[in-house]
Amino acid sequence: MALVVQKYGGSSIGSPERIRRVAERVVATRAAGHDVVVVASAMGDTTDELLDMANRVSRGPGPARELDMLLTSGERISNALLAIALTDLGHPACSLSGPQAGVFTTPEHGHARIVDVLPTRVRQELDRGQVVLVAGFQGLCKDTDDVTTLGRGGSDTTAVALAGALHADVCEIYTDVDGVCTADPRVVPTARLLDRVSYAQMLELAAHGAKVLMPRSVEYARRQDVTIHVRSSFTDRPGTLVTTQEPEMEKPAVTAIAHDRSVALVSVTGVPDEDPARSARVFRVLADAGVEVDMPVHKSSRGRVDLSFAVARGAASTAVGALHAAAEEIGFAAVTSDHHVGTVSVVGAGLCADVTATVCETFAALPARIRLLTTSELRISVLCGEGELDRAVRALHEVFELSAGRVGEVATVYAGTGRGW
Amino acid sequence: MALVVQKYGGSSIGSPERIRRVAERVVATRAAGHDVVVVASAMGDTTDELLDMANRVSRGPGPARELDMLLTSGERISNALLAIALTDLGHPACSLSGPQAGVFTTPEHGHARIVDVLPTRVRQELDRGQVVLVAGFQGLCKDTDDVTTLGRGGSDTTAVALAGALHADVCEIYTDVDGVCTADPRVVPTARLLDRVSYAQMLELAAHGAKVLMPRSVEYARRQDVTIHVRSSFTDRPGTLVTTQEPEMEKPAVTAIAHDRSVALVSVTGVPDEDPARSARVFRVLADAGVEVDMPVHKSSRGRVDLSFAVARGAASTAVGALHAAAEEIGFAAVTSDHHVGTVSVVGAGLCADVTATVCETFAALPARIRLLTTSELRISVLCGEGELDRAVRALHEVFELSAGRVGEVATVYAGTGRGW
Repeated sequence: MALVVQKYGGSSIGSPERIRRVAERVVATRAAGHDVVVVASAMGDTTDELLDMANRVSRGPGPARELDMLLTSGERISNALLAIALTDLGHPACSLSGPQAGVFTTPEHGHARIVDVLPTRVRQELDRGQVVLVAGFQGLCKDTDDVTTLGRGGSDTTAVALAGALHADVCEIYTDVDGVCTADPRVVPTARLLDRVSYAQMLELAAHGAKVLMPRSVEYARRQDVTIHVRSSFTDRPGTLVTTQEPEMEKPAVTAIAHDRSVALVSVTGVPDEDPARSARVFRVLADAGVEVDMPVHKSSRGRVDLSFAVARGAASTAVGALHAAAEEIGFAAVTSDHHVGTVSVVGAGLCADVTATVCETFAALPARIRLLTTSELRISVLCGEGELDRAVRALHEVFELSAGRVGEVATVYAGTGRGW
Repeated sequence: MALVVQKYGGSSIGSPERIRRVAERVVATRAAGHDVVVVASAMGDTTDELLDMANRVSRGPGPARELDMLLTSGERISNALLAIALTDLGHPACSLSGPQAGVFTTPEHGHARIVDVLPTRVRQELDRGQVVLVAGFQGLCKDTDDVTTLGRGGSDTTAVALAGALHADVCEIYTDVDGVCTADPRVVPTARLLDRVSYAQMLELAAHGAKVLMPRSVEYARRQDVTIHVRSSFTDRPGTLVTTQEPEMEKPAVTAIAHDRSVALVSVTGVPDEDPARSARVFRVLADAGVEVDMPVHKSSRGRVDLSFAVARGAASTAVGALHAAAEEIGFAAVTSDHHVGTVSVVGAGLCADVTATVCETFAALPARIRLLTTSELRISVLCGEGELDRAVRALHEVFELSAGRVGEVATVYAGTGRGW
C-alpha cells in the first residue's frame, strides 16, 4: 500500500461533471489499495470571477490580506464538492483548508512561501480510512493568524510540500496535457512523451517555456526528494516521472526542446569601458527593480561595452525605465528593447561543444540569425526572432532525433487547450 | 462613542453595487464617531448556488461536514468584498472568519449552537482603528477543529452573540423591510411601523409568521440583554428597537397582528378515553419524530378524545406518518391533515378575556370559521381557512385600531421583495 498525493488543476475540475470524473479516478486509486491525499485548485475560472467582483466593489486592486481571504474560498469550494462527490461514491472523505492541513507560511499575502508543513490532522483522517482533500494554494501565517496564498503555481507547491511532509510515495500532478514532451506538440506534431526526466532538466524546461510545471514546485520537489508524476486527468496515458535519477550514459543526451515566446531582448550599448563598476551597475539597477535577467551577453570593443540580455516581456518597460533613470551614473549611449523575439532551449545532460556546434549549424541551415546564445551543462539557449522560433524548434527536434518515430513510440494526441505542454 | 454591531442580510449585499452602498452606510456610522463590527451573510443566492453544485456532484444531500465547508465560503467572500470596498473608501477594514472571530459552537454540522464567543481578535482589530467584518452563520467546533454552520437565521444569531460578547451598545439588523410593523403591509396597507417592541412580544411575532427576525436570535438577545435595532438597508427610516422595556400601561394593549400561511392542521380522532396514556402517546410520538406542535386542542366526549393541532406545513406528512406507525398502541379512529389553513395571531401585553371576545366577534362578523383558538397573556392565535386569512388579518388590525392614521403616523412604503414584514 502506497501513499499517493494527487493534485488536480482548475481545468480538471472545471464543472460538476469533471469533479465526478476526478472523484472516480480517486476511487480507482483507493481501489488499488492506496491511501490518497488530494490537493485541488479552485474550479475553472473561479479565481478570475472573484477578482472581477473585487474590481467591481473597489477602484484599486484591494488590500492583499482581503484578496487572500476572498480567493482562498475558491479552493474550499472545490475541495468540499470533491469530498461530497467521493462520499456519494461510497468513499468517506474529509476536506481540509490549508490551515487545517497544517500548511504554514510567511506573512506575505498573495505570494507567501511555505515555511512548515505539519500534517497531523491529515494523518489522523488517513488513519480513519478517509480520503483527505486539502485546499491548495493557501496556508496560515502563524504570527498573524491570517490566511495567505502562495501565488502562481501555489497548488502544485502545496501538493509537493504535503507529499514531502507525509513521506508520500509519489506526488501525481494531474493536468490537461499528457505529461512532459520532447517539445510542445502544437509546434512539433511528432513530439514524444518523456517517461522520466530529472529534477535539474525539468527545472531548465520549466524555467524556459514548458508550462506544465512551475519551477518553484520542481525546486521544492528536488529539495524534499519527492517524485512528481505528471499525468493527464482526461486520459489514462502513463505520463512523466520527475525524479532524482539521471539516465546513466556517457555521451551527451538531449532530452527536449523548450521554447518561450514571452521574452524581450534588452540592449545597453556604449557603456564606457574604463570603469567596470558601470556595467556592474546595469545589473544592480535591474535587480533592484525586481527584473530577472536571462542570457546576459557582455561584449567589449574599442573602449565601449555593449550588454544584451533577455527579460520577461512584461518586465521590459520596467527594465528600460530603471536603466534610463540611472542613465547618468551608467553613462550608456543607448538602451533598446525588442519584443519580437523568442528563446529556444536545448535541454539535456552533459551538453558539450559538439552540441553547441550542432545548434549553431542548425540555425545556419534554416537560415535564422542567432541574436544571443548561452550554454551550460544542462541547457543551450538561443534568442532569435519570434517569427523564426517555430522553425527552429522543429529543426532542433529533428536534428537531435527526438521524434516519436525515432525511438519507436507513438506520438501523443493533444487536446490543444492552449495550456502548457 | 458607541460600539455598533451591524448585520446585513443576503439581499442587502446581493450585488457589487449593493456592497458599495452598504460600505457607504458603514462609513457614515464611523463618521458619526462609532466603532463598527459588521456581520454579513452570503451574497444573494450564493448559498442556493453552492447547494445546487453539491446536488450536481452527488445523488444525495452530501455529508453535513462538507456542506458546512462549502457553504461557509459564501460569507467569507461577501465579507472580504465588503472589506475591500471599505478600504477603497479610505476606511481600513479586516474581515474575519467565524473561527477567527472566536465564535465557538457545538459539533452539529448544519445546525450548530453557539457555546462561546471570545472576540479577542475582534477587539484587537477595533483597537487598531479597523472596521471589523465577521462572517456570519459560522463558527468553529473546538473539539473537532471543524467549521460549523448555525442553520437558519444564523447570521442574525452571530451578530447578536458578538454584540453580547463585546458589550456593544446596539445590534443593528439591516434587512429589506423598514422594521417591525403592526401587520404585514402587503396584507394591510395601513400597517404602521413599530418604533419599539419587547423581546417577549417579538418572540411571539417571530414564532407566528413575522419573518423579519428569527425567534432564535431574539431569544439570544433577550438572554444577553442586547438591544436589537431592525432597519432597512435601502432607506433611512428609523426602524424598530427590540428591547427589554415594556411600555407602561395598565389596560390590555395589542401591539401587532402576525399571520402564518406555512402551517397545516392535523387531527387525530376517536382515541379511546379510558386510558390518558393514549393521548399523551400522540404527543410523544410527534416529539420523537421532531415535529413541533402548536395550538393543541384536546376535546373529550362520549368516551372518545379528539386531538387537533397545528404543525409546520412541511412537517405534516412526517407527523401523519409517525402517527400511523403508532396506530395500534394509540388506537385512534382516524388521522387527517388539512394544508389549506393559516394562523392569525394577536400579539400584545396583558391580553384578557375581553380581547379574546373581540377576536371571536371579529371572526363572527366576517364571517369566518375558527378551527382552533389558543390564548396566552401575550398572544391569541386563531387557525382558520387559508382563504379567510387576509380578511381576518385586516379586520383584526382595524378593530384593534393599529393603523397608521389612528395614531397619526405615516404608513410605510414597502419595497415588497417578498421577504418578511
